[in-house]
Amino acid sequence: MAMSAASPHSLLLKKPNHRTTATTQFTGFPINPSRAATTTYKPISITCSTTTPLQDRPAATSQSSDRVFNFAAGPATLPEIVLKKAESELYNWRGSGMSVMEMSHRGKEFLSIIQKAESDLRALLDIPSEYAVLFLQGGATTQFASVPLNLCNPDDPVDYIVTGSWGDKAFKEATKFCKPTVIWSGKSEKYTKIPDFDALEQNPSAKYLHICTNETIHGVEFKNYPTPKNKDAILIADMSSNFCSKPVEVSKFGVIYAGAQKNVGPSGVTIVIIRKDLIRNAQPTTPVMLDYKIHAENNSLYNTPPCYGIYMCGLVFEDLLAQGGLVEIEKKNIKKGQLLYDTIDQSNGFYRCPVEKSVRSLMNVPFTLEKSELEAEFIKEAAKENMVQLKGHRSVGGMRASIYNAMSLAGVEKLVAFMKDFQARHG
Amino acid sequence: MAMSAASPHSLLLKKPNHRTTATTQFTGFPINPSRAATTTYKPISITCSTTTPLQDRPAATSQSSDRVFNFAAGPATLPEIVLKKAESELYNWRGSGMSVMEMSHRGKEFLSIIQKAESDLRALLDIPSEYAVLFLQGGATTQFASVPLNLCNPDDPVDYIVTGSWGDKAFKEATKFCKPTVIWSGKSEKYTKIPDFDALEQNPSAKYLHICTNETIHGVEFKNYPTPKNKDAILIADMSSNFCSKPVEVSKFGVIYAGAQKNVGPSGVTIVIIRKDLIRNAQPTTPVMLDYKIHAENNSLYNTPPCYGIYMCGLVFEDLLAQGGLVEIEKKNIKKGQLLYDTIDQSNGFYRCPVEKSVRSLMNVPFTLEKSELEAEFIKEAAKENMVQLKGHRSVGGMRASIYNAMSLAGVEKLVAFMKDFQARHG
Repeated sequence: MAMSAASPHSLLLKKPNHRTTATTQFTGFPINPSRAATTTYKPISITCSTTTPLQDRPAATSQSSDRVFNFAAGPATLPEIVLKKAESELYNWRGSGMSVMEMSHRGKEFLSIIQKAESDLRALLDIPSEYAVLFLQGGATTQFASVPLNLCNPDDPVDYIVTGSWGDKAFKEATKFCKPTVIWSGKSEKYTKIPDFDALEQNPSAKYLHICTNETIHGVEFKNYPTPKNKDAILIADMSSNFCSKPVEVSKFGVIYAGAQKNVGPSGVTIVIIRKDLIRNAQPTTPVMLDYKIHAENNSLYNTPPCYGIYMCGLVFEDLLAQGGLVEIEKKNIKKGQLLYDTIDQSNGFYRCPVEKSVRSLMNVPFTLEKSELEAEFIKEAAKENMVQLKGHRSVGGMRASIYNAMSLAGVEKLVAFMKDFQARHG
Repeated sequence: MAMSAASPHSLLLKKPNHRTTATTQFTGFPINPSRAATTTYKPISITCSTTTPLQDRPAATSQSSDRVFNFAAGPATLPEIVLKKAESELYNWRGSGMSVMEMSHRGKEFLSIIQKAESDLRALLDIPSEYAVLFLQGGATTQFASVPLNLCNPDDPVDYIVTGSWGDKAFKEATKFCKPTVIWSGKSEKYTKIPDFDALEQNPSAKYLHICTNETIHGVEFKNYPTPKNKDAILIADMSSNFCSKPVEVSKFGVIYAGAQKNVGPSGVTIVIIRKDLIRNAQPTTPVMLDYKIHAENNSLYNTPPCYGIYMCGLVFEDLLAQGGLVEIEKKNIKKGQLLYDTIDQSNGFYRCPVEKSVRSLMNVPFTLEKSELEAEFIKEAAKENMVQLKGHRSVGGMRASIYNAMSLAGVEKLVAFMKDFQARHG
């Protein structure tokens, strides 16, 4: 698919535009003449594009000329079709007379939104009925505490496989609430590997085994999953940065949790999928907002949830289903990942990806330049071509292209074309 | 100011509208012809209103015909001007080529947003420089745990004044983390009073004194504030439901916290204002996300914050400043409250507000009907007139009109006119 040419507008931060900006009155409601009389608004005639409902539209494969290609690691690019839908109903959600941001979380309008979001997520991941789905706040970082507080006692041993910075943070937080052990760490090899599961020395009495299925900073991804040695133990996964990027057999896990701001929505929503029999009394000093039982009993409405974020996740789920579900999404992600990794591997060492080939992430692609002094130039030139947020995490350096679900093939094609051109000029 | 007539569209939940909905291309970016060719979009000509920047516009005092008057207790009505601004830049924030929802929280665009939000809030509340402002997640309910975890040891005594359900919840949560005492409770009088401060029996060694300045469910509001007896103790206030509704002398408090979803934004953002010398080591078992020190040291960017919610709060702060700041806002709130309470008090007992007159909330106005069997009819008829969410909290019954900053005088005038008409027909 050909990519539309990007307009050469500046990427520098602009001050608010003081010129008038056109917005529409939505169809279905007449423009109120009294309003024009009491304010300074002047009706003008402009040409607008029309949108059709999300579910009736083909997935966008090209990019509007006013969009950048955003390779940020999260918050990250969202599907254009979802943003357009959100824009069209921001002011007045489907004739309700109010924005989703204004709705009582106990009103029938928002209940329909959260219920549909859950139902679509269940369809996407084929979540068994014996699992609860919770929409929470506080990011995966809050779950680093919630998991041990809810699933074990202070003296219980638990196992952590640490394949990157996030797994390490999860382990460190757990030390406050139980007795965790790092049974494998990739730190000495700069987090470029996933362990051989058979060789793991699991604690036979560990209550759970924790993994982070995709390390956002290091670009290391589990392609399959270990089984806890203790048959009563459960596998727990932080899936924040590859959630809904491919099918997952949920029944292999006791708990799956994910911050939304990579593949499925804006920041501020955390999704927890938990086997219902694991929802028990938490440790007595568990803050109520970290207590799974409280949230499960109240259908994520114990207190006011992050309503607008949940609404946005719902729009993304709808779009993923419309694209054919996670089997199709995975195919697209494999194609994008392959294109980018092939470009790196076929550059005769001009570009390098440090991660072991078999466990390279399809979501976050870290790479360096052989001539590291050119990295700043690479990032600068890419930005001029409307490809932004390519700088690697401050703890790692180099570059990182995050190519989540919503990054189009066109975006990766453009990046790859730029990389080849850059190499031709600087190689 | 005359109120525009409300359109008689149904308030019942509607299914998504499958007709095409018009959205605009924003000025400044040409419509991309290649896009129309690759999708099914057809350009059509429609008439649109124009908007001017938030700060250049007069505050809206009338209501668009497609809006309902939303008396919900939170999430609650937002300023129309703010929603229009958000709508106009949802898809492409000020020429950045991306939505605020897609921005890296460490990028210069979002940093400018969060810094301006903080700076505007500091201007609004005249926050002294020795106070930190934190933008967090998890609602006031999370703060019920954070406050004791950060400010005292497990054996420390602390005092709670309980003037309603929220103060009671704060107290109960604190029992997990320190030794709280309820030194006054309004429960036996159904939470209709605020105590006489001089008669309070404060614990002389209490580390802090906690109040909830406005009880959303019961409609009871502190008009001034008690002073902790122990001169080293601090006053802590949950201001969720009257935050930014009037000027507050911040220096009287050690900590002020508030969920955003009443007066200043959508749900999912919690604001904490804390005197910097109180930011110390939290209890060892404090989850990292509840640790004020971590958030203060990282300028609320320890992990990914609720970016879009913070952006919305920023737009609201800008609007409140444009209206003349909290002195002007308070005048408007007094006028609205007076109108509504006068209508209740002058109804010869047809309407009743149980709260003691001197402490009635300007934000949440609970009332009952003498003939309680008419309450369902009242709510139903009001909804037909586009006034929604007037039902009292399930724990209290009756009616409740939440008239936060963003509820216009026109909305209260319309409610009052309806109440008088209802009384004339049913009195």
